[in-house]
Order: sequence, then C-alpha cells, then structure tokens
Amino acid sequence: MAIKYPNGKQFTTGQMTHRQHKPTNQAKRGMTLEEELNHANAYYLATDRAVIHKKPTPIQIVHVDYPARSAAKITEAYFREASTTDYNGIYQGNYIDFDAKETANKNSFPLKNVHNHQVVHLKKVIEQGGLGFMVIRFSKRSETFVIWAQLLFEYWDQQEQRKSIPYDVIVEQGEQILPSLNPALPYLDAIDQLLSQRKFKEY
Amino acid sequence: MAIKYPNGKQFTTGQMTHRQHKPTNQAKRGMTLEEELNHANAYYLATDRAVIHKKPTPIQIVHVDYPARSAAKITEAYFREASTTDYNGIYQGNYIDFDAKETANKNSFPLKNVHNHQVVHLKKVIEQGGLGFMVIRFSKRSETFVIWAQLLFEYWDQQEQRKSIPYDVIVEQGEQILPSLNPALPYLDAIDQLLSQRKFKEY
Repeated sequence: MAIKYPNGKQFTTGQMTHRQHKPTNQAKRGMTLEEELNHANAYYLATDRAVIHKKPTPIQIVHVDYPARSAAKITEAYFREASTTDYNGIYQGNYIDFDAKETANKNSFPLKNVHNHQVVHLKKVIEQGGLGFMVIRFSKRSETFVIWAQLLFEYWDQQEQRKSIPYDVIVEQGEQILPSLNPALPYLDAIDQLLSQRKFKEY
Repeated sequence: MAIKYPNGKQFTTGQMTHRQHKPTNQAKRGMTLEEELNHANAYYLATDRAVIHKKPTPIQIVHVDYPARSAAKITEAYFREASTTDYNGIYQGNYIDFDAKETANKNSFPLKNVHNHQVVHLKKVIEQGGLGFMVIRFSKRSETFVIWAQLLFEYWDQQEQRKSIPYDVIVEQGEQILPSLNPALPYLDAIDQLLSQRKFKEY
C-alpha cells in the first residue's frame, strides 16, 4: 500500500540523519532499530492503527544566523538530555510511552542502557494509567522483545543485587516482536499479545 | 511547594531559549504563553496530576564537531516543520494532545495561525480516542481559552465561508483559563470543566 508519511516524503531516522524513506520492500534491509520503529510508526499512522511519534532530540540552540532570502541557519547548538522517553502516542484509546534499546550481550540486558530519568518518567506514566514498555533488541541474536516497564522497574529497583535483566526472563515475561515485511517491526502486535495476557498486572 | 523539574533545575522555555526557571512567586510576571504552559506542565508533573511535555523543536542536523574533552557542538543545523502539535501526554488515563496559539486580534482567532498538519494530527488523535484541544490567547484582552479540537475542525473545514473563529464562539463553546498563582495558567482546570460539560460530544 502507499504510505503517506507525517512529514511528507521524509521522516527523521535518527538524531543525526534525515533521509529519504526506503521502499517498503527494502524496509528490513540494514535498518537500525530506530529506523524500524519509525517505519512501523509511519505505517501505523497511515493505516489509522495508532498515532505514535518519536520525539525530536532536544537541542540547546545558542546561535542562529538569518541569511537574507534563505532559511535560518543554526550555527551553534548542543545536545541536551531528554527528560522523557523517545516515543509516545495513542493506540486505541491508550496512552503509550516507550523507549528502545539495543544490546550486544547475548544472555542479559544491562541496566546501564537505561537512564534514571527514563525510569522516573515511565513510573509517572503508569501512575497516570498509561501503558509503558521497553523495546529491547539482542543484536547478536537478531531478536527484539517488548517488555512492560513494570518488569524493568522490578530489576531497576534491585540493582544492588544484579545490574541486568536475564535474557530468559525477557523471553518468559516479555513478547518477541516477530519481523514481518510491512511494517518490518510490528511491535504493536506484541503489545496486543501482552495486553491479552495482562502479564503487567502481575507486577 | 518545592517543584522538581523534569530536567533538574532548568527546562526549555521556547525554541530559542533555555533559561533558569523563575521562582514561582514571579511565575506570572512577563511569561510568554509557552513559558506559562511549561510552568504548568512542570507543576502538574511535580504534583502527580498529569505527565505532559512540550516536544522539542525538530532540528535537521547537518554538521557536528566533536572537540576533545568537551561536548559535541552542532555547527550547522536547520529548523524543520513539526509533524504534530507541540504538547502531548497523559492526564488521568486520557491521552491529551494540544497546541497553543496567541492572537493580537480582539474579535476572532484567525485560522492562519494553525497549520494543516496540526489539524490532520489532531483529527487522527481524536479518531484514536484521545482528547485534542487548542489553547488560544487573545493577547490584547489578556484572556486565554481552551477549545476542543472539534470546534477548530468545524471552522477549518469551512474556510471558504470564513477564515477565523469568532471570539464570541470561543467564549461560548470553550472555557476560559482563569489565571492563578501556581500554576500561572491552570489549563487542566479548564479541561476538567469542558469534560464535565461534555461539550465536545456535540460535534
């Protein structure tokens, strides 16, 4: 199907890049996790399944030039730390909020990949009744999972005992995102699975 | 009360500036509409009433320097048009999404203040079951209102007839945000009023 992207033909595929979207039949080839999520979000938006966007990278702008007859040019700026997660939106009436992380580890997801402000934010989201989760990719296994933020909290709050979430726990408590052609990473299918199992009620 | 801001002591108060937050007792003095909304969102976050953030301004980064022993410096970048509204989050289980506009007109709100992509986005949000609205300030009157996005759509879809929303309609269909000390602009109180009246069901 033809997909209309939110920003016209282009959409941001990373904090540094801004490229033409690849044709869908190449979607899976060589896309980063973030590109796959952006692709999925554009697909979900175009098919009215959900309205989910990656937030822009927060930038502190120090100096801008305004050349005559051309666009304002930022000539000095710095990256700022985000105060939230990278992705949020609405899916069938539910506020959803998540972050995506990749690890080269095979047998566990190191908590050092997560920032404290992300955990604090996700806890507040869940207190408000939202759905908070993490998308975790084990790159060496080429496997990507969704876990509820509540599982992250369990381990985050016990870091003196261990500083990572075991792969086996993620397999058992989470849901694998099975790659497909379009979108390449249908993570909302995994969310539907977790919602039907209501696993997050256990926490 | 002491407020913990999401980013520590600072938070963004506009696409160009990044300043210390003013003490609450000065909060109302000389704040822009955006600053008042950021202040309200920080207050709502600190008091666990809602989790609502302004999205960072989307920037297309072209070149970054990485000086030894200091922060990465962006030396060429450009502003990009957002594909969504500026504000979203969760309020008591509801996904909320809005934009804020100011007009110097006294008797109507010109639709040219609104971009088509913002209307398209708000329509999709409402299809998904979210609460979409606009915060509109009549600066000459020092009056600020909340209107449901559905009222905006009514006029937006009839632009060949008139290109603005009359002030009287906004007063009648919307809800005024009555300024207070803390937060300066308690817009969620106006949303509570509109929700209790369920006016948006009329559209």
